[in-house]
Amino acid sequence: MATSDHPEHSQGGQYTVKGKEFTRDTNYITTRITADGADGFPVEPGRYRLIAARACPWANRAIIVRRLLGLEDVLSMGLAGPTHDERSWTFDLDPGGKDPVLGIERLQEAYFRRDPDYPRGITVPAVVDTTTGAVVTNDFPQITEDLSTQWREHHRDGAPDLWPEALREEMAAVNKRVFTEVNNGVYRCGFAGSQEAYDSAYDRLWTALDWLEERLSTQRYLVGDTLTEADVRLFTTLVRFDPVYHGHFKCNRSKLSELPALWAYARDLFQTPGFGDTVDFEQIKRHYYVVHADINPTGIVPQGPDLSGWLTPHGREALGGRPWGDGTPPGPVSDDERVPESATPLR
Amino acid sequence: MATSDHPEHSQGGQYTVKGKEFTRDTNYITTRITADGADGFPVEPGRYRLIAARACPWANRAIIVRRLLGLEDVLSMGLAGPTHDERSWTFDLDPGGKDPVLGIERLQEAYFRRDPDYPRGITVPAVVDTTTGAVVTNDFPQITEDLSTQWREHHRDGAPDLWPEALREEMAAVNKRVFTEVNNGVYRCGFAGSQEAYDSAYDRLWTALDWLEERLSTQRYLVGDTLTEADVRLFTTLVRFDPVYHGHFKCNRSKLSELPALWAYARDLFQTPGFGDTVDFEQIKRHYYVVHADINPTGIVPQGPDLSGWLTPHGREALGGRPWGDGTPPGPVSDDERVPESATPLR
Repeated sequence: MATSDHPEHSQGGQYTVKGKEFTRDTNYITTRITADGADGFPVEPGRYRLIAARACPWANRAIIVRRLLGLEDVLSMGLAGPTHDERSWTFDLDPGGKDPVLGIERLQEAYFRRDPDYPRGITVPAVVDTTTGAVVTNDFPQITEDLSTQWREHHRDGAPDLWPEALREEMAAVNKRVFTEVNNGVYRCGFAGSQEAYDSAYDRLWTALDWLEERLSTQRYLVGDTLTEADVRLFTTLVRFDPVYHGHFKCNRSKLSELPALWAYARDLFQTPGFGDTVDFEQIKRHYYVVHADINPTGIVPQGPDLSGWLTPHGREALGGRPWGDGTPPGPVSDDERVPESATPLR
Repeated sequence: MATSDHPEHSQGGQYTVKGKEFTRDTNYITTRITADGADGFPVEPGRYRLIAARACPWANRAIIVRRLLGLEDVLSMGLAGPTHDERSWTFDLDPGGKDPVLGIERLQEAYFRRDPDYPRGITVPAVVDTTTGAVVTNDFPQITEDLSTQWREHHRDGAPDLWPEALREEMAAVNKRVFTEVNNGVYRCGFAGSQEAYDSAYDRLWTALDWLEERLSTQRYLVGDTLTEADVRLFTTLVRFDPVYHGHFKCNRSKLSELPALWAYARDLFQTPGFGDTVDFEQIKRHYYVVHADINPTGIVPQGPDLSGWLTPHGREALGGRPWGDGTPPGPVSDDERVPESATPLR
């Protein structure tokens, strides 16, 4: 995600507003890609391209869900680099600095094809219609939900049900609290414009983390006894906690690795195919420490933390649970989507 | 310590120099207060005043040594507040904003009484001659050594020998490495002006911490089997590690609390009378996060870390050692020098 009035994309690297608390702009392009094509964009293999960035927690959700459901062959993926200027995420990782399918240097171009006067931040994830080169949607919670519910016909054999019908109500409540208090809560700490705003954000965050620590000490997964999208949404924040939120965003009552249940839960997910194998710690650190120039003016990226702990035994099997429900894990990551060895403890 | 060309006192809160590594100015006023008065300043009860600041690691050494040796009644102490502007440490904690003995608002005034054109940073610790109001010395390693060796006649009964004759050579070598690689090494990370300077500083720091971790896994104290000034000098950096150096200075391979021997060693000292009871975590955090405006422009001070771990059992007694040698621990801190309850886990 990235917006011009705040994260992770701002005017001249300015994310904090003096004296103010941080407020996220949650207005997105809400057009949906659906099985019935009600919005004019029917599900269609090969037609759409998911534009993500490994650095971004909101885009990371879509990368994980696409892989868990085995949608790689029907929904291609383009990856923007970890840093961007005030205008846009850019395809600087691609040969020639252009997305090989869309042929553009900046994601902004696809937004302008949708609306030449697009007034908001240029955010990832975005799904682009390759027949027009225009963004269809950047509504990140809807994107991943629709991958589960609207693209079902194209899921791999054994794909897990990430939105079990019987758990929807509980998931909605949990997802809401996790979003406002944790996913967005870390940003509220990091982009606080006053000591008061920070103090209040810190208290809210740790109240929620204490709640999660307790909840996850007796159950393997966040909702129900299988992997669901509720786990995906919490995971992308947890995996960034010690590398960036703890220091850069001052969420430092303790490290994630000092919270026994949450740390074991996070490692369990990290070691589950489809989760840790999407995480690029180098891009994550570069993104936060370089892009947020107002809170890290030197642009220096820390070398720590030591990541080897992510692969240690987590012992969560003892809590029971059926990770895949009636399904199976995804196979190995394809060569062209593998995270470089230098950016992950996975081998 | 604080100097105008670099820490912890700079022109307009600028501590990093773009493209440069950090270099500490180690030129001080080297006049000594000695038993024989060779420099014109003989040891004399009641004549001198130690000006320190609880925030500052270099001044913290002198606060600890004065207390371990029981010099409180012969050498009074004034404490500057945790934050300062580019001109000077100030007595903003005192009634009316003036040091009650020297009658000055800024420590700078005592430096100017020594030299009206004093060209360097206004640093703590400084020892001031109360008969003239002028700084005698700010040479911090010499100040603490002289408290041990020149003020011996005024030590309390049972004061420990912090510079045992037989260990001097080993202490010199250890102190040198601890100073260049650890005490100053954390600043080299935090004030690095380029990624290259930071990366090199980080590697140097962790090489030294790995050496200390190994050394302290088999011996209770840093040199010999009793408390010495080598422990004092390492302690003042370790106690600041998780609250400030880990996040603010990006010394984040791990927290101190993740290094088993060093963390137990630091807790052992913290729980030893004369060490932890001099530490004000609130002032430490305020100092670093507020004063270094170029690396923390928002001035927001983190609420973390949780400090309760400092009081947990350390188990270091199993390594043997005789903390006080043939001496005894100091008594309780006097009421007027006690750290407020809000700033310490000690009760």
